[in-house]
Amino acid sequence: MKILVLNCGSSSLKYQLINMDSKTLLAKGNYERIGENEAFLTHKVGTEKYIIEKSVLAHDEALQIVIEQLLSKEYGVISSLDEIGAVGHRIVHGGEIFNGPAKITETVIEQIAECGEFAPLHNPAAVLGIKACLKLMPTIPMVAVFDTAFHQTMPIENYLYPIPVEYYEKYRVRKYGAHGTSHSYVSKCAAKLMEKDIKDLKIITCHLGQGASLCAIKEGKSLDTSMGLTPLGGIAMVTRSGDLDPSVVTYIMEKAHIAPEEMNTILNKKSGLSAIADMVPDFREIEEKSREDEKAKIAIDIFNSTVAQYIARYAVKLGGVDCIVFTGGIGENQSNVRESICRQLEFMGVDIDSKMNKTKGEAKQISSTTSKVKVFVIPTDEEMMIAQETLELVQ
Amino acid sequence: MKILVLNCGSSSLKYQLINMDSKTLLAKGNYERIGENEAFLTHKVGTEKYIIEKSVLAHDEALQIVIEQLLSKEYGVISSLDEIGAVGHRIVHGGEIFNGPAKITETVIEQIAECGEFAPLHNPAAVLGIKACLKLMPTIPMVAVFDTAFHQTMPIENYLYPIPVEYYEKYRVRKYGAHGTSHSYVSKCAAKLMEKDIKDLKIITCHLGQGASLCAIKEGKSLDTSMGLTPLGGIAMVTRSGDLDPSVVTYIMEKAHIAPEEMNTILNKKSGLSAIADMVPDFREIEEKSREDEKAKIAIDIFNSTVAQYIARYAVKLGGVDCIVFTGGIGENQSNVRESICRQLEFMGVDIDSKMNKTKGEAKQISSTTSKVKVFVIPTDEEMMIAQETLELVQ
Repeated sequence: MKILVLNCGSSSLKYQLINMDSKTLLAKGNYERIGENEAFLTHKVGTEKYIIEKSVLAHDEALQIVIEQLLSKEYGVISSLDEIGAVGHRIVHGGEIFNGPAKITETVIEQIAECGEFAPLHNPAAVLGIKACLKLMPTIPMVAVFDTAFHQTMPIENYLYPIPVEYYEKYRVRKYGAHGTSHSYVSKCAAKLMEKDIKDLKIITCHLGQGASLCAIKEGKSLDTSMGLTPLGGIAMVTRSGDLDPSVVTYIMEKAHIAPEEMNTILNKKSGLSAIADMVPDFREIEEKSREDEKAKIAIDIFNSTVAQYIARYAVKLGGVDCIVFTGGIGENQSNVRESICRQLEFMGVDIDSKMNKTKGEAKQISSTTSKVKVFVIPTDEEMMIAQETLELVQ
Repeated sequence: MKILVLNCGSSSLKYQLINMDSKTLLAKGNYERIGENEAFLTHKVGTEKYIIEKSVLAHDEALQIVIEQLLSKEYGVISSLDEIGAVGHRIVHGGEIFNGPAKITETVIEQIAECGEFAPLHNPAAVLGIKACLKLMPTIPMVAVFDTAFHQTMPIENYLYPIPVEYYEKYRVRKYGAHGTSHSYVSKCAAKLMEKDIKDLKIITCHLGQGASLCAIKEGKSLDTSMGLTPLGGIAMVTRSGDLDPSVVTYIMEKAHIAPEEMNTILNKKSGLSAIADMVPDFREIEEKSREDEKAKIAIDIFNSTVAQYIARYAVKLGGVDCIVFTGGIGENQSNVRESICRQLEFMGVDIDSKMNKTKGEAKQISSTTSKVKVFVIPTDEEMMIAQETLELVQ
C-alpha cells in the first residue's frame, strides 16, 4: 500500500508518499509560505528536486498542487489518486483523549480542534490539512497520529504538577510531552540493534533538535518525558527556556508589565541558547562559535550539561539504564555535543568511543565495547512511523 | 565572647544567645505574632521554658522584652548588656551585593532593604530587627549573615537563566539560591566526619524542610543549588511548586484571570505536596498518611523521586559524588524518606544501612561500610554558623 503522510503547519504543508510494501520513499516535499505571495513548493523525487513557485491561499489549494506533482506525466510517481491507500496526519497534541493513532471521523476532527488549546499554532493547521484531504480525496481513509499519544502511559506521579488540583480538573493542566512518534521509533530501533526484546530494556531517548526532549522508556512504554503541558518545558532549547523557577515568570511579568500571552511568546521564541549566546537561533552556528565566543560557549555548556543531567535523572527513574539514544537534527549531526554529554556521564558507566562517534550516516553504536551503558545514534524517521501506524489501523 | 543571633520574620523574632568560648547555648526563644493582640514570647534556658504573653506593636518592643528575659534576676543568663560582644543577623537575601557576612553600617542596611525586592517578606523584617538593636544596644557591633552568600561562587552557566539577557541586566533576574548557611555548615561537618580536607571532596547537601533545597559543593564552594531567583524554585516542597514548565504559569493566569502577584502566592502557599495530597501543609502528616492514602502516597513519591533525581543531576555536575548529607526538619527526622531516596540511587553506588538509618540523634553515617558514596545525617545549626561568622568578622 502507498501511504501519504501529511504534516501541516500554520503556513506550511510537508508530505511524504511512501510505498509500504517496499518501505521506500516515492516522493516528498514542502509547500512553504501558504497564504503569502511568495508561496512555493519544493518537491523531491529521488535525487531530483523541483521548485514550483505558485501563490496559494490555503492548505486545500496547496494540496491540489502537491497532488498534481505526484500525478505529473513528466516526473510523477503515481498514475491515479486511487493508488494512495491511506493518508496519515501528524497531529501535535492529542490531549488526554488519544493514547494511540485514530481513524479520522467527524468526531475525531472536533476532538483535534479541542486539543488545539494546548497547541494553538499546530492543531488548527492539522485540521486544515485534514479538511483539504476530505475535499480532494474524500474516499481515501485517513488516520491521525499524535505526538503526545506515546506519553499517555506515564503514571500519575509523572504527569501531575504540584499545583492546586483544580487546574487539572478544570483545565486539564498536566504534563503531555511531545516527539512521541520519534521517541517510540528510535527506542524500537535500539532494541533491534541490541537484539533484545524492548520489554527487557531501560532506554533513555534524546530527541535533540530545534525543539528537544528526552524520554525514559521502560518495557517499551514512556515512563516520563521532559516536555510538559506544551513543548516549552524541559531542557533549554535553541529559542525556548525550558523549565524555570516560576517566580522568574511572575517577577518579570510584574516588573515589565507583560501579559501572559506575550510572556509565553518571549519564553518560546526569544529565550533559550540563542538568548544566552546573544546570537541568531541556529544551533550549529552557536556550537561553531562556542570555541572562540564566551557567551556561545556558556550556551552550549548549559545545553550539554542539562541533557546529561536529564539522562542521570531518568536513570534514577528507571533504576539504571541499558542504553541511551541520540536522534534529531542536533542528536544525529553534532558529534561534539554527544561527546560532551557522554563524558559527563562517565561516573555512571557511560564510555563513548570517540572514533565511532565521529563517523556519520546510519544508525550505529557509539559507545565502547566495554561501556556498561550502550549509546546509539539513530536517525529518526517520524514519517515512516506515521505511515506504519496508519497502515496498521486501516488494514 | 557571647553572641546574640537574631532571625526576624515579618511578625516574629527568633534569637539565640551563644557563648562562643565554650560553644554553648545560653538561651533561645521566639517572639511570635508581633503586632497582634495575641503576641507571646517563648523563652528557653536549658530545659526550662518560660512563656511571656505580652502584646507588642513592633520588633523593637519585642526585642526589649527579650533583653529583659536575658537580664532577668530569676532566670537571666547575663547580668549586663555589655556582656553581649556582637549581634549576628540572619538575612535571607543578599542579592549580588553580598558574597559573605558584612559588618552592619548605614550603607549595608540600605543594601539589605534594596535586596528586599527578591524577599519581600523577609528582608524588610530583618531591617526592623537591625534598627531595634541600633536603638536598644547602639554600641554593640553587628554583622549581617546572608542565606544567599554561600551560593555567590556559582559559575555563570549555573546562575544565568536561558531568557533574554535584558532581564538580568535590568532587573538582576538570576539564580541566587537559599539555605546557604545550612549547606555550608553541614558540608564542613561532613568533611570533618570523613576526616578529609573539604577541598578534596564532592559533596551534595540536601536541606529538606518546609522549604527544601539541594546544593552541589566542590572544593568547599557552592557549584550549583536548586532554589532560584526566590525560594520557590527547585524541587516540589510542602506548599511550593518548585520549577515548572513556564507555560503552566502563563496558561493558568490567562484561563483563570490571575495577576502575577496572586499567581506567585498560589505557587508559594497553595501548591506542592499538600496540593497533590489534598491535605494540610504538614509533611509528617502527609508522610504518615501515605501508607494508606493514594494521593498522599503520590505526593511523597514525587518528593522522594525529585530529591533522588536532583542528587543524580548534581553527581553529573560534580563528576561523581563522595558524600551525600541530609539535614533540615525532614532530612534529619524522616528515615523513610532518606531510605527511599537512597534506594533510588543504588545504581550509582549508594548503599544505605537501614539499621543505622533508623537511629536518631547526632550527626552520623547511615551508608553501609562498603557503600561507594558516604551518606550522613547531620543536624543543621544555622545559628551557631551565624555566630561563628559574626565572631570572625568582629574580632
